[in-house]
Amino acid sequence: MSAPLHQRVDIALGERSYPILIGPRLLEDASLLGTHITARSLLIVTNETIAPLYLAKLQNALQGRRVATLILPDGEQHKTLESYSRILDALVAERMNRDAAAVALGGGVIGDMVGFAAASYQRGIDYVQVPTTLLAQVDSSVGGKTGVNHPRGKNMIGAFHQPRCVLADTSTLQTLSPREYRAGLAEVVKYGFIRDSAFLKWIEANVDGLLAREDSAVMHAVRRSCEIKADVVGQDEREHGLRAILNLGHTFGHAIETASGYGNWLHGEAVAAGMAMAAEMSMRLGWLQQAENDRVVHVLKRLGLPIAPPRIGVQRGRELMGMDKKVLGGRIRLVLLKGLGHATVVDDYADPALEATLQAHFG
Amino acid sequence: MSAPLHQRVDIALGERSYPILIGPRLLEDASLLGTHITARSLLIVTNETIAPLYLAKLQNALQGRRVATLILPDGEQHKTLESYSRILDALVAERMNRDAAAVALGGGVIGDMVGFAAASYQRGIDYVQVPTTLLAQVDSSVGGKTGVNHPRGKNMIGAFHQPRCVLADTSTLQTLSPREYRAGLAEVVKYGFIRDSAFLKWIEANVDGLLAREDSAVMHAVRRSCEIKADVVGQDEREHGLRAILNLGHTFGHAIETASGYGNWLHGEAVAAGMAMAAEMSMRLGWLQQAENDRVVHVLKRLGLPIAPPRIGVQRGRELMGMDKKVLGGRIRLVLLKGLGHATVVDDYADPALEATLQAHFG
Repeated sequence: MSAPLHQRVDIALGERSYPILIGPRLLEDASLLGTHITARSLLIVTNETIAPLYLAKLQNALQGRRVATLILPDGEQHKTLESYSRILDALVAERMNRDAAAVALGGGVIGDMVGFAAASYQRGIDYVQVPTTLLAQVDSSVGGKTGVNHPRGKNMIGAFHQPRCVLADTSTLQTLSPREYRAGLAEVVKYGFIRDSAFLKWIEANVDGLLAREDSAVMHAVRRSCEIKADVVGQDEREHGLRAILNLGHTFGHAIETASGYGNWLHGEAVAAGMAMAAEMSMRLGWLQQAENDRVVHVLKRLGLPIAPPRIGVQRGRELMGMDKKVLGGRIRLVLLKGLGHATVVDDYADPALEATLQAHFG
Repeated sequence: MSAPLHQRVDIALGERSYPILIGPRLLEDASLLGTHITARSLLIVTNETIAPLYLAKLQNALQGRRVATLILPDGEQHKTLESYSRILDALVAERMNRDAAAVALGGGVIGDMVGFAAASYQRGIDYVQVPTTLLAQVDSSVGGKTGVNHPRGKNMIGAFHQPRCVLADTSTLQTLSPREYRAGLAEVVKYGFIRDSAFLKWIEANVDGLLAREDSAVMHAVRRSCEIKADVVGQDEREHGLRAILNLGHTFGHAIETASGYGNWLHGEAVAAGMAMAAEMSMRLGWLQQAENDRVVHVLKRLGLPIAPPRIGVQRGRELMGMDKKVLGGRIRLVLLKGLGHATVVDDYADPALEATLQAHFG
């Protein structure tokens, strides 16, 4: 059986380097899996939504190994120390040793929890990511961040732990709801905004193919997103500076998500509206031209993403932005654009530009 | 106030290098603490036994910072994910940010749990160790191992995370029970056996000063132990090979501890009897002379340590040794001595030597 066409991005991190493989039907490809998953004992962790769709296919392609499975409930509300503990219990119950590997089959929640469990089981075993959402394929695949939420803060507990390999099976995106798929596209176009105007142009020219989830368009979008994120993270693995540009739209978006109650706005939707706000503020500061701002708004609209946040009130918006982890010394650090393809992290912006932006959108 | 005399060992790990300071009354020394603990917000974690003895002194010496405290129950049975979770809850409740540090005031259990919580809170904050047992001062201070137990295995969950600094206040050893103090000496003399015959000679010449807990003797013993462990760990940080020699006596000792029910034999006591067994087996293999074996037994006896394990039976002993994590491919790897000061990790020893040793001690 010949391997289906796929693309590959190599994440260069010395000893911890790993490949991201991108293409259709990868998780059914026994020979590809045989090459990239070398552990003889595996625990596949997935959730109740994903299991009926893909678990049997993946197990089938992994025949010949010792494969145990754990199915967790679906949803961000289950991204807890308790679920993490269940993964560890399963690893212990299956007597997995240090040569075993964990496999995360699902979206970002599963990936983050399994990564953290793998980071801490016997002080670190291998894990493989099989992300099944667009957001997870373009965001969680790169960066090594793993963890769970605390009742009083998202991602408060975790570790940096790199996967051995990421299998981004683009066929799994076909089963996403249109809304969830579009929310993933917000993160894709973000990479264009912050770092690559050529990629932004490509997205503008391929909106239809992306919305239709055509293999070639999706593969290119995932590949280029991973490359850009890898470039940024490679220069700042432990998040001391540059890496913050990946949060374009996230501080405004965090206020939107929190004010609306988590789940009412999808993360990508809030980020889209947040990016529209960041672009407008950049324009008010004279860093972005009107035509550039219009392009931001236009491409977000064409991708079916919201550009106007709910009117949560200026004061409430400020407060919720201030609760963000990105606050340093009381002042809100923001990611803004100095031209399309050039994001920057600033805390010495002119306050009236922020005030006017909050008035226009939250007021 | 002039700083009291103290000794210093520098653990060289690149960016993660840190000092171990060793001497009397260090935890009361505000100027020393000011130099080595730079975080402005601290969470001190300790236990119910240690808190009444040293917590106020340490807090007093840290005046001028924001200091929160958490007091956990004492004992290995509390080295759990639940206690770990309580430390994380305290960090969140006190709104500690990434610049805060955790301080572990106590023995190895507190140090391991606080280290793991620090490793995972916001994916890693600083922590400082203030070990108050001899075992923790000579063992947990070096190596970066942190973690908690799982109901089905010790230290199954954790991380490698180096402290910012270790303050080994030798005055705290005065409040240890004689039995617990002597159990710590087992790990001290172990460093002589595995790596440094000159240190072994020094111990033989200073047994009285050590048993009397004289400052100068204790400081030298702690310093030299940390130096030797640092040398071994520095060559094998992630425990791929050499580091296993630190487990001299531990595989036999593990069987003794388990068969007796944890707590009936202290870890150091079981290691002492285990080292006597390892020495005898080394002699049976022709790797250690009779006179060398006699020195091992003699110094352990003089330190008030047991050299004869309980008669747990050969078969049961074998089984319990086989449950140890050090098993590779079914064969029990053992740390043995090729002369005093030269430990080696082997799995190709002659079986009759093991059998005879088990018969002589467990049979």
